[in-house]
Amino acid sequence: MISSKISKVVIKRLPKYLRVLEGFLIREIERVSSKELAIKLGSTASQVRQDFNCFGDFGQHGYGYKVKELYLKIKEILGLNKKYSCIVVGAGNIGQAIMNYSKFFTMGFNIEAIFDINPKIIGLSFREVEVLDVELLIDYVKNNKIDLAILCIPELQVESIYTILKDRVTGIWNFATVDLLSTEKTFVENVNLNDSLFTLTYFINNGV
Amino acid sequence: MISSKISKVVIKRLPKYLRVLEGFLIREIERVSSKELAIKLGSTASQVRQDFNCFGDFGQHGYGYKVKELYLKIKEILGLNKKYSCIVVGAGNIGQAIMNYSKFFTMGFNIEAIFDINPKIIGLSFREVEVLDVELLIDYVKNNKIDLAILCIPELQVESIYTILKDRVTGIWNFATVDLLSTEKTFVENVNLNDSLFTLTYFINNGV
Repeated sequence: MISSKISKVVIKRLPKYLRVLEGFLIREIERVSSKELAIKLGSTASQVRQDFNCFGDFGQHGYGYKVKELYLKIKEILGLNKKYSCIVVGAGNIGQAIMNYSKFFTMGFNIEAIFDINPKIIGLSFREVEVLDVELLIDYVKNNKIDLAILCIPELQVESIYTILKDRVTGIWNFATVDLLSTEKTFVENVNLNDSLFTLTYFINNGV
Repeated sequence: MISSKISKVVIKRLPKYLRVLEGFLIREIERVSSKELAIKLGSTASQVRQDFNCFGDFGQHGYGYKVKELYLKIKEILGLNKKYSCIVVGAGNIGQAIMNYSKFFTMGFNIEAIFDINPKIIGLSFREVEVLDVELLIDYVKNNKIDLAILCIPELQVESIYTILKDRVTGIWNFATVDLLSTEKTFVENVNLNDSLFTLTYFINNGV
């Protein structure tokens, strides 16, 4: 149904459309024009139409888009109508924040196991998921089909953990401070929080 | 010293250079070529040289860059040789993770106050900083010079909090699910964690 040749730039804009549409849904707005969407996204109406054209025929000319239909369609395109089996590696600050984020589960991300190296943390539970010794990770990923591994580990441990996960899990959401590369079997999304903070300090000092 | 006309795209690459250089520093590598940097960043040597040329004369032709000098220089450009007075608004999962992240303080980000709306959380302390009632926020930002406000609040509270902070704090690091706009006096950096996750689910399902 969906062409796999859609550019990454377009894909990266879809979650933003989804958020804007969710806002419209909450306010019970039923129809929206490409121009209204463009204003919310700091884009142009023609850009919006072009983006949606990548995925087939969404709108009706001169009539706009049905908010709910478009919202559900984009959710489907992004794969958010599915369930994902997830593991978290690293039960520090970020790892715990993810474990405690209740919306995560309702969004379809089911955290099935969490691993850590610290004996003080191993054995604790977050939302009834017990922290396991990271020594068990390799057997776990060999014996279970994992869609998504969430990495919340210090830089020095990244290489060894990546070696275990690579080509064994389908996706890695990487919060470590080292960027990882995708492979043919494992897609990586690097989230470096410091990067965005350090960009901000530049602008604070120099203006935009 | 620094031209303010450097493109945002170049600025956004600087934190990545910093991370790579930090890696070289740890491994006590003294000198690095633009080619070696390019490999680490998935870029090209000419791109690297072009980026650094925006900031004056860094390297020596055919001789490469001195790692430590370049590292310190980029830190300075990003404003990371300074201290920042920060507040956190919202002491939920992300807010607490930031409060508990010890490296944050040593990087120069001094969290001076934290605010929440929840009576169960108000009065608790994180690293000796007591959670204050968000009702006190407006007086606090009027009476104190705040460089950076870190927003970790639900969507419905974003508008009212942004109205309080806008033009009163220099920067906003926004973890809420609604993107905020920068003003002439307040620079905003939007971090939407779900956006990167939802991009990843697309690639998991469709390939890159």
